Amino acid sequence: MATSAAERAAVQRALALAASDGVPLGPNPRVGCVLLDAAGRTVGEGFHRGAGTAHAEVDALRRAGEAARGATAVVTLEPCDHTGRTGPCTQALLAAGVRRVVVAQRDPNPVAAGGADTLRAAGVEVELLDGELAAQARALNAAWTFAVERGRPLVTWKVATTLDGRSAAADGTSRWISGAASRRDVHRMRGLADAVVVGTGTVLADDPQLTVRDADDRPTAVQPLRVVVGLRDLPATARVLDDAAETVHLRTRDPHEVLAALRARDRQHVFLEGGAHLAAAFVRAGLVDELVVYTAPVLLGAGTPAVADLGITTIGAALRPRVTDVTVLEGGDVRTTAALEPTGAAQEREA
Amino acid sequence: MATSAAERAAVQRALALAASDGVPLGPNPRVGCVLLDAAGRTVGEGFHRGAGTAHAEVDALRRAGEAARGATAVVTLEPCDHTGRTGPCTQALLAAGVRRVVVAQRDPNPVAAGGADTLRAAGVEVELLDGELAAQARALNAAWTFAVERGRPLVTWKVATTLDGRSAAADGTSRWISGAASRRDVHRMRGLADAVVVGTGTVLADDPQLTVRDADDRPTAVQPLRVVVGLRDLPATARVLDDAAETVHLRTRDPHEVLAALRARDRQHVFLEGGAHLAAAFVRAGLVDELVVYTAPVLLGAGTPAVADLGITTIGAALRPRVTDVTVLEGGDVRTTAALEPTGAAQEREA
Ligand SMILES: NC(=O)c1ccc[n+]([C@@H]2O[C@H](COP(=O)([O-])OP(=O)(O)OC[C@H]3O[C@@H](n4cnc5c(N)ncnc54)[C@H](OP(=O)(O)O)[C@@H]3O)[C@@H](O)[C@H]2O)c1
Ligand SMILES: NC(=O)c1ccc[n+]([C@@H]2O[C@H](COP(=O)([O-])OP(=O)(O)OC[C@H]3O[C@@H](n4cnc5c(N)ncnc54)[C@H](OP(=O)(O)O)[C@@H]3O)[C@@H](O)[C@H]2O)c1
Repeated sequence: MATSAAERAAVQRALALAASDGVPLGPNPRVGCVLLDAAGRTVGEGFHRGAGTAHAEVDALRRAGEAARGATAVVTLEPCDHTGRTGPCTQALLAAGVRRVVVAQRDPNPVAAGGADTLRAAGVEVELLDGELAAQARALNAAWTFAVERGRPLVTWKVATTLDGRSAAADGTSRWISGAASRRDVHRMRGLADAVVVGTGTVLADDPQLTVRDADDRPTAVQPLRVVVGLRDLPATARVLDDAAETVHLRTRDPHEVLAALRARDRQHVFLEGGAHLAAAFVRAGLVDELVVYTAPVLLGAGTPAVADLGITTIGAALRPRVTDVTVLEGGDVRTTAALEPTGAAQEREA
Repeated sequence: MATSAAERAAVQRALALAASDGVPLGPNPRVGCVLLDAAGRTVGEGFHRGAGTAHAEVDALRRAGEAARGATAVVTLEPCDHTGRTGPCTQALLAAGVRRVVVAQRDPNPVAAGGADTLRAAGVEVELLDGELAAQARALNAAWTFAVERGRPLVTWKVATTLDGRSAAADGTSRWISGAASRRDVHRMRGLADAVVVGTGTVLADDPQLTVRDADDRPTAVQPLRVVVGLRDLPATARVLDDAAETVHLRTRDPHEVLAALRARDRQHVFLEGGAHLAAAFVRAGLVDELVVYTAPVLLGAGTPAVADLGITTIGAALRPRVTDVTVLEGGDVRTTAALEPTGAAQEREA
């Protein structure tokens, strides 16, 4: 049975609810739910507000009360079937007497199945959407979906460079190559991730704080995990060790190990800020999914290359990321966003 | 006395006439002229069709015949006062009995004055415009104006690079870094110049033909002068020496000498295509006015730097060209156009 116009409108509404400002703050996906009666009228709405709070379905059912009996539940993500901190949503839907469930995005988990089968076995009609609405639902949780499907966080690599590919002049000076608009944009990008990663080299050279700060240079309420990778010790005075945000020092040189450690901490989206050597190691390991290059209208003619040796010796082996966006920032810097392999997730974020 | 609405409209019309397709083919500026009677009605129009043909004023006077008596001549450029291949336009205007002359752009020649004084001395009312119309008239002949004012051709430097500033991979391969759209655009840019300049290094390494070719790879009717700079001999079989276009080999390493030789050949706009060493010499000599960078969404991590040592060792000395345009080309290459010093001419071309 196809979806009705009311159901498709309810998917849009559920997506909007899911994307409510600032939720969820944590590792869970954003989910919205709208309950419709037989006439297509909304009898309850809900969304998930982050780990430890009610799932979207339960939130909506609670608001609908008795009106949920015989209703259609429209959800952005396939209802969960497992008992986590909250009970499984499938059981809550069945207990409330929901008759039909419309699902925008299937559970991306390749092993643990979602709730569709359980619901169907209990006699509930389940409609799994395809096409544009399904794509929008995936895009809403692109990094989460990527991490669940691939078993590792999505990695976005940031590079700031001159027009001629330098990140510092011959004498090591580099403040500032990028303009103020790019630097603000980097803070915005950090804020979209849940882990910011640099090598020990960057910490020892630049002593960055690696927090997300607003236009007035004040730290924002929620901070991604700061991650330093490499075997060397950090000085106790390093700014990255201050208490403005949580920090972890991973004493490894293996990018796979880094991502496994971050996955174990429920991190889904890594913002890899460099330096050039750590970033090159991630690229060589095939662990960069998305590239964000800030190109400043500056020429140096010499100095530190912004990108270190990637092990590429001939043009046929060049990396050719697929450009998804080019934006000119105030001051003339150009931000190029590109998917480094056609994994899907990086593409969807642009959708 | 201010200009009338009819006169201002006539300036726009004269600018459009001057910019008629394909003229002038050669070193002369593009000029248009409209003759108005006392009621503001057009009684003659003319434009210059290139060296050896009638100047715009003479063309318009010829078409107006007796109606020119008492008329107002609206011209995009101050009438000439010297006897070249054609007689001075000032005399033609006086002989025809023109009463008033409206001039959009003054003669930029800092030594030989234009015709305004001569006309005034003969009792003709002369109005020299400022503002937007004057700027449009300068922009119409930006390279010509630059060359007359500065006594040397305008130099546009083209660079094609990867996102990380490389022009070839470690093994020397470079086909292709830029996409097809960039390569077509380079031909269009060559066609806007009247000289295309490379070093002997580029000829010996790549054996380029350096002609302007259309989308079907056929040479266009008019070709800029091909110029090779450097002391080494070229092989007689070099493609740049074929008869698809004129070529000159300047056996010097002094960029000033190059521009002087090209000025002596009436060249006003040089398209400097590299390689990196010749281009760096022009930059160091302060002889690059405009920069066009094609950045391809490609990463190499190693290989030949697209820009050679410019003698810059610290960030404070970096070149910071003023970006005038950023365009994303088909395939994801980005073309950045920038003025390398605020000389005015490069800016106007973007107006
Ligand atoms: N333009 C930009 O966007 C940007 C961004 C960040 C930094 N930077 C600049 O980059 C410079 C630092 O460069 P960098 O490249 O040395 O810094 P880096 O990449 O941050 O640090 C390099 C260090 O990372 C550790 N590491 C861990 N895993 C590695 C692996 N698989 N391969 C190689 N190294 C690994 C090693 O340290 P151990 O010996 O401790 O294991 C290595 O010495 C600074 O001057 C900074 O200003 C620029
Ligand atoms: N990416 C791009 O946009 C682009 C464009 C063009 C070329 N290329 C590449 O660049 C490579 C050639 O590089 P290149 O830098 O050697 O070529 P180049 O700059 O064209 O030629 C260098 C030669 O120019 C002569 N020259 C004249 N005046 C000079 C001066 N003031 N300073 C230095 N040299 C001067 C010298 O030759 P004499 O010894 O003969 O005097 C010098 O060896 C080729 O592989 C080509 O593929 C890339």
